Amino acid sequence: MEDNNNNNNNNNNIDISEIINKLKNKEIKPYQLDELFNSEEAVKIRRKYIEDMVNMELPQISNYTIDEKEASKKNIENMIGAIQIPLGYAGPLKVNGKHANKEYFVPLATTEGALVASVNRGCSIISKCGGCTVRVIGDKMTRAPVFTTKSIVDAMELKEWIEANFQKIKEIAETTTRHGKLKSISPILIVGRFVYPRFTYSTGDAMGMNMVTIATEKACEFITSQIREEKNIIVHMAALSGNVCTDKKPAGINLIEGRGKTVIAEVYLTNEEIKKYLKTTAKAIEQVNMYKNLIGSAISNSMGFNAHYANIVGALFLATGQDEAHIVEGSLGITVAESDENGLYFSVTLPDLPVGTVGGGTRIETQNECLKIIDCNGGGNALKFAEIVGATVLAGELSLMGALASGHLAKAHSELGR
Amino acid sequence: MEDNNNNNNNNNNIDISEIINKLKNKEIKPYQLDELFNSEEAVKIRRKYIEDMVNMELPQISNYTIDEKEASKKNIENMIGAIQIPLGYAGPLKVNGKHANKEYFVPLATTEGALVASVNRGCSIISKCGGCTVRVIGDKMTRAPVFTTKSIVDAMELKEWIEANFQKIKEIAETTTRHGKLKSISPILIVGRFVYPRFTYSTGDAMGMNMVTIATEKACEFITSQIREEKNIIVHMAALSGNVCTDKKPAGINLIEGRGKTVIAEVYLTNEEIKKYLKTTAKAIEQVNMYKNLIGSAISNSMGFNAHYANIVGALFLATGQDEAHIVEGSLGITVAESDENGLYFSVTLPDLPVGTVGGGTRIETQNECLKIIDCNGGGNALKFAEIVGATVLAGELSLMGALASGHLAKAHSELGR
Amino acid sequence: MEDNNNNNNNNNNIDISEIINKLKNKEIKPYQLDELFNSEEAVKIRRKYIEDMVNMELPQISNYTIDEKEASKKNIENMIGAIQIPLGYAGPLKVNGKHANKEYFVPLATTEGALVASVNRGCSIISKCGGCTVRVIGDKMTRAPVFTTKSIVDAMELKEWIEANFQKIKEIAETTTRHGKLKSISPILIVGRFVYPRFTYSTGDAMGMNMVTIATEKACEFITSQIREEKNIIVHMAALSGNVCTDKKPAGINLIEGRGKTVIAEVYLTNEEIKKYLKTTAKAIEQVNMYKNLIGSAISNSMGFNAHYANIVGALFLATGQDEAHIVEGSLGITVAESDENGLYFSVTLPDLPVGTVGGGTRIETQNECLKIIDCNGGGNALKFAEIVGATVLAGELSLMGALASGHLAKAHSELGR
Amino acid sequence: MEDNNNNNNNNNNIDISEIINKLKNKEIKPYQLDELFNSEEAVKIRRKYIEDMVNMELPQISNYTIDEKEASKKNIENMIGAIQIPLGYAGPLKVNGKHANKEYFVPLATTEGALVASVNRGCSIISKCGGCTVRVIGDKMTRAPVFTTKSIVDAMELKEWIEANFQKIKEIAETTTRHGKLKSISPILIVGRFVYPRFTYSTGDAMGMNMVTIATEKACEFITSQIREEKNIIVHMAALSGNVCTDKKPAGINLIEGRGKTVIAEVYLTNEEIKKYLKTTAKAIEQVNMYKNLIGSAISNSMGFNAHYANIVGALFLATGQDEAHIVEGSLGITVAESDENGLYFSVTLPDLPVGTVGGGTRIETQNECLKIIDCNGGGNALKFAEIVGATVLAGELSLMGALASGHLAKAHSELGR
Repeated sequence: MEDNNNNNNNNNNIDISEIINKLKNKEIKPYQLDELFNSEEAVKIRRKYIEDMVNMELPQISNYTIDEKEASKKNIENMIGAIQIPLGYAGPLKVNGKHANKEYFVPLATTEGALVASVNRGCSIISKCGGCTVRVIGDKMTRAPVFTTKSIVDAMELKEWIEANFQKIKEIAETTTRHGKLKSISPILIVGRFVYPRFTYSTGDAMGMNMVTIATEKACEFITSQIREEKNIIVHMAALSGNVCTDKKPAGINLIEGRGKTVIAEVYLTNEEIKKYLKTTAKAIEQVNMYKNLIGSAISNSMGFNAHYANIVGALFLATGQDEAHIVEGSLGITVAESDENGLYFSVTLPDLPVGTVGGGTRIETQNECLKIIDCNGGGNALKFAEIVGATVLAGELSLMGALASGHLAKAHSELGR
Repeated sequence: MEDNNNNNNNNNNIDISEIINKLKNKEIKPYQLDELFNSEEAVKIRRKYIEDMVNMELPQISNYTIDEKEASKKNIENMIGAIQIPLGYAGPLKVNGKHANKEYFVPLATTEGALVASVNRGCSIISKCGGCTVRVIGDKMTRAPVFTTKSIVDAMELKEWIEANFQKIKEIAETTTRHGKLKSISPILIVGRFVYPRFTYSTGDAMGMNMVTIATEKACEFITSQIREEKNIIVHMAALSGNVCTDKKPAGINLIEGRGKTVIAEVYLTNEEIKKYLKTTAKAIEQVNMYKNLIGSAISNSMGFNAHYANIVGALFLATGQDEAHIVEGSLGITVAESDENGLYFSVTLPDLPVGTVGGGTRIETQNECLKIIDCNGGGNALKFAEIVGATVLAGELSLMGALASGHLAKAHSELGR
Repeated sequence: MEDNNNNNNNNNNIDISEIINKLKNKEIKPYQLDELFNSEEAVKIRRKYIEDMVNMELPQISNYTIDEKEASKKNIENMIGAIQIPLGYAGPLKVNGKHANKEYFVPLATTEGALVASVNRGCSIISKCGGCTVRVIGDKMTRAPVFTTKSIVDAMELKEWIEANFQKIKEIAETTTRHGKLKSISPILIVGRFVYPRFTYSTGDAMGMNMVTIATEKACEFITSQIREEKNIIVHMAALSGNVCTDKKPAGINLIEGRGKTVIAEVYLTNEEIKKYLKTTAKAIEQVNMYKNLIGSAISNSMGFNAHYANIVGALFLATGQDEAHIVEGSLGITVAESDENGLYFSVTLPDLPVGTVGGGTRIETQNECLKIIDCNGGGNALKFAEIVGATVLAGELSLMGALASGHLAKAHSELGR
Repeated sequence: MEDNNNNNNNNNNIDISEIINKLKNKEIKPYQLDELFNSEEAVKIRRKYIEDMVNMELPQISNYTIDEKEASKKNIENMIGAIQIPLGYAGPLKVNGKHANKEYFVPLATTEGALVASVNRGCSIISKCGGCTVRVIGDKMTRAPVFTTKSIVDAMELKEWIEANFQKIKEIAETTTRHGKLKSISPILIVGRFVYPRFTYSTGDAMGMNMVTIATEKACEFITSQIREEKNIIVHMAALSGNVCTDKKPAGINLIEGRGKTVIAEVYLTNEEIKKYLKTTAKAIEQVNMYKNLIGSAISNSMGFNAHYANIVGALFLATGQDEAHIVEGSLGITVAESDENGLYFSVTLPDLPVGTVGGGTRIETQNECLKIIDCNGGGNALKFAEIVGATVLAGELSLMGALASGHLAKAHSELGR
């Protein structure tokens, strides 16, 4: 909007150079501009300041339609503009989910050439074969603070007290949020005298990290003060996140317990379909999956038993305003390929997809539009969205595995003379 | 540019509705539009087609300044527009690297509120304390195909043959690239009769995945045919990636051997500085680091022994056109906090940062501008850029750990009466 | 007993050479000897057969006091004798547990020189400092079969059916055992169309693997037939262990959920005590623990964040007749060392100690005697025994860490001139 | 021998009760008995002391034939007797190795009923099918100290200095040993300002941990003093093991780089053989391996992608005097089962088998006899022994996987009506 609206702007008479001098002299700080000017102007002044400091013009990042006021309030500080990422689409993709049940055109934002084409091929094949089945088998968001105590004896008391007082803790935690519900505090891990209770919430249609952080903080204050009063035990919350959550890091606990949405998508392809659309065989895909995704990952001590979930999760997360750092968790998962005499069972399992359709980056105009393309904008759509992510990952994975197997098969024929 | 240039467009007289009908009837395929029309028109028609199919208008994703022709050739297929991500900055950040050696204003693209503010605080503190030391201690890009053989005996022969013929293989691989240099093929892992040689390259200023994939494919063809000829051993490359690379998945092999750039950044803060700028103590930061980043991550079976590398790596990767799926690898690493009587040693170790300053998303206009802001656009800048990433991660990590420790300290005082 | 009893033996008139010829000619099989002769004779004949086959005498393994009849029934097949392992002891070790609450002399069987001495030193220091606190915070044995189904939809139905019918399944499972109680079936992991329910039992004083295997098999038969009848869903138990148990392999799920006994032992040492008994400082031990057990293990992608639990667990397991393969699980765990102004908090956390005081190798005469030395023979003693294991591991770990820190400190003084 | 030799003993006139009183009054310490008396007497007195302290007799552990003098010098401290473990055997097992090339009767010491029978079945099948191929593909022993430095700059200098001075370091290290050869110092990991060089040796026929520890300590002293002199850089070896070795803990670095012997064993079974001997099919074994050993282990975040290596490694390690704590490392590994139209390829890969045929527990009389049974006693036999371990693990794994698959197949037929 900025570029088009310049003429309507009432702040035109600000002496920008004077302000920039004050910034340079540290008389005012960049973030204070948001208080002194309207957001549009603040962004412009900051950008001009940077232009001066690095001695170059920044015409490209000036082009955007993001509402600076909203973004500055909720998504970004020290805003100076926006970056653009090319947007393509894959589809139609026929999804047979519990919540997503039609053909979708899936928006993908990426700069990695060939990715969209590959996913698109997978969508086409799946759709031709009747679509894929998808289910969300888990739905939660977690925060696990770390408490310190005087000794293992107190640590055990703390654990037991939390278990015994779950209902009260739940009430306290939920006073901070309309949508978050504390479902359990489990597991409660103890190492030495340190205690890591994993607060597990449902968060409606929001990804929910902020919500559960605030709720957990409140709950921890209650726990700390109550156990002191009731039991005369002194415990101390050393950090609101003790990394057992585990947020934005690859972690076994997320594989096993799940985090965000746990999603499985599957498709069955007949031998004829595999031959026709993928130019390979069920057995060849099964083999490449075993050599690469299972054994190759095992010997590398990897947590990603798949070919490229991160690519598809990444492109879809960016298009729809999910948190980019959550690509780390979303990339975990296991691909299964099992041949039988009639064809191939193929599935992707994503234990840890933190996603939402409200809040965070979903508010940004272009991302919001992408959510609308897949009919997932706003409340009531998080599970549907998770199913679409699962289905799209299946498409991308099938396409790449098929391509590898096709080469594999061709080479096996020529080289091994089979 | 699209919106402004409509009037100059010579294709105005195309009958779009007719083409869209053909798309609907599958007489032409969406990707064929790139052959039939200029890129700008192709994007517009595809977007119109999607608008029809999902029955909504898409005004937001239409706003962009990306050159569709370039993007369609190298970064995206089925392009229909672009998304925008708000851009802020943190800094100045004083970096004492081998390649980066001044104060930088670091561009960060994110929709996660408070992130830029937190990194900015870290930059400010580091700069006030004399800046941070950063070094790149490893620089490589890897591709590890999987070969199948008839038996472990042949598998060993294959491994030995590759080791004995490294120079020849290197020559062959390097015929495909000007910038890629095959530095070693190591390790060569064997599981049963499957062989996973990890081709390790230097790739100049490109992140290099494409480069090394092409080079490795050529090398594999040579290996396969030569060993058959010389030794009468039949080996078969089953997949060009056998997941030992390990690309875009969290993997122990990348922690241990390194991948992309391996970067370490460190700062020493005196007790006075910690008190003044972070409102805490060296000991408190050391403790929170132990409880959370070391012990909390250990008991969760995590590979990320840090607080939030993914946030900072993510925002900087998006701003500068790195591959978003590489945030997965970039988030691995270990934070060290060690107090002594005078203050705090604090460091971040990032074993696996796949980055580049040429190619891929770095070509996109806005991202390119961001690279210019930190003086890292184009050739000769990859190591400098890696150092800036390391320094920024240090800033973000220090800021969050300091904040946690500050709360920790305050609570410890009040609750434990210390 | 064998050697001393030769003269009383009524089978002396067997023509051994004839039988051995039949063994050589495969007219009878080695294991059939147990049916044809009494156990003592069977052992002797088999040993003679092996002596013939390998053309050497085996006087050493002939010396043993094990009751061959009992052992052949429950512990060994194709028995030919016994091996001996030297037995030492460490202690007295003052244990302040919930179940173990006095000074113990701990039997240790090992061939690794210096190990017993090191553990003994740790026991001595702990006892002088008032003993160590130990608690068992978890107690379970698990078995997780793998079921295959037709699709994720059936897999979810199976999971839900198991959850809904827990009481019935529990009744069925418990018909097979007097001591085993099915406490929960959790987690129930799903990957693609495969389902891994983790059956979690209490097993009284037995380690319990056999017990839970039999109970789980019965439960699985019930599940398979009932769900077919009730829901017309065909599920198939493909293996009674699907490796989610996880038995005798290092696994994140065991770290997180616990397996066997989960034990924590701790001790607090004052600065004076550390100086006097360990010739080092609290800070030096904290540092070595951070460099080695936390950071060193993190960068190696290890699951053992400790110095040498396996040594102590191994020697105590062998002495007391635990399953030697369970040393794998018992070696997992995290050592904490935290200094404050008054001294050092030091603890070991062992999430996964599969132990028992009845059944298995605890029946063997010498092992049984070792259990008696620590007052842990027979029923009612498993938790006490687990506490003693935890305390002994603490002693061994403290001793080694203290020795490392003592060298560290000395070197730091001389080398760094501090 | 002890019991039989009592009458020849010249120390009979010692007043044991007086000495025991001194022990109780702490006038003499238990380990001092080794200086005051001959080993046999020392053992007896200590045992009597323990009998008094725990108020029971210890007749069982008194029965042994171990030479107390040798054992007390090299294998055990505070010796009070010995434990016995039942010994069985499996075989004959036809091994087609590079070093082991005949049929072996494999001694197994265990108290886990059914284990020997299962391994024996595997041996029988393998032998009937022509034997198994085994190869040692890696052979090394490692020690990785941790050095601290002032900053990453010094850490890099240290790494570079070590690389540049490898020959000198090698000479110094090898002055301490006749058999150990320093092959490389690699990788040299750096985290923050801490440096973990992994010293990698060949150790002849010894397992070699002591040898490499002593050699590395000497090397480290040289490094520390030389780099100070040459470069004026102060580095400090904080611990002789920084856990990057990684000794007796499950670790990714051992999977990837190997440790001890890296061994692969394989067998090919025709469809007829599988039907006849295992009552199942190639496909069924392949499936169970995928469900359990690959996918089940992946979702449990396990490092053991196998069914029960620990059982077989454990029983063979105990029988032959290997270090029991090394069962932890030996249990790591990946089982491969791949069906084709003619049959099944089946292999076990053991990346980390620390074994020896001289030194340590191999000297104990009974264990030594077991080594002789497989023709592996003494020098020149370590690789042969490693091959036999690999072959035996293959036998045990095939037997269990076949049994599971046989049940699986039967159930699949009855339940799924296939």
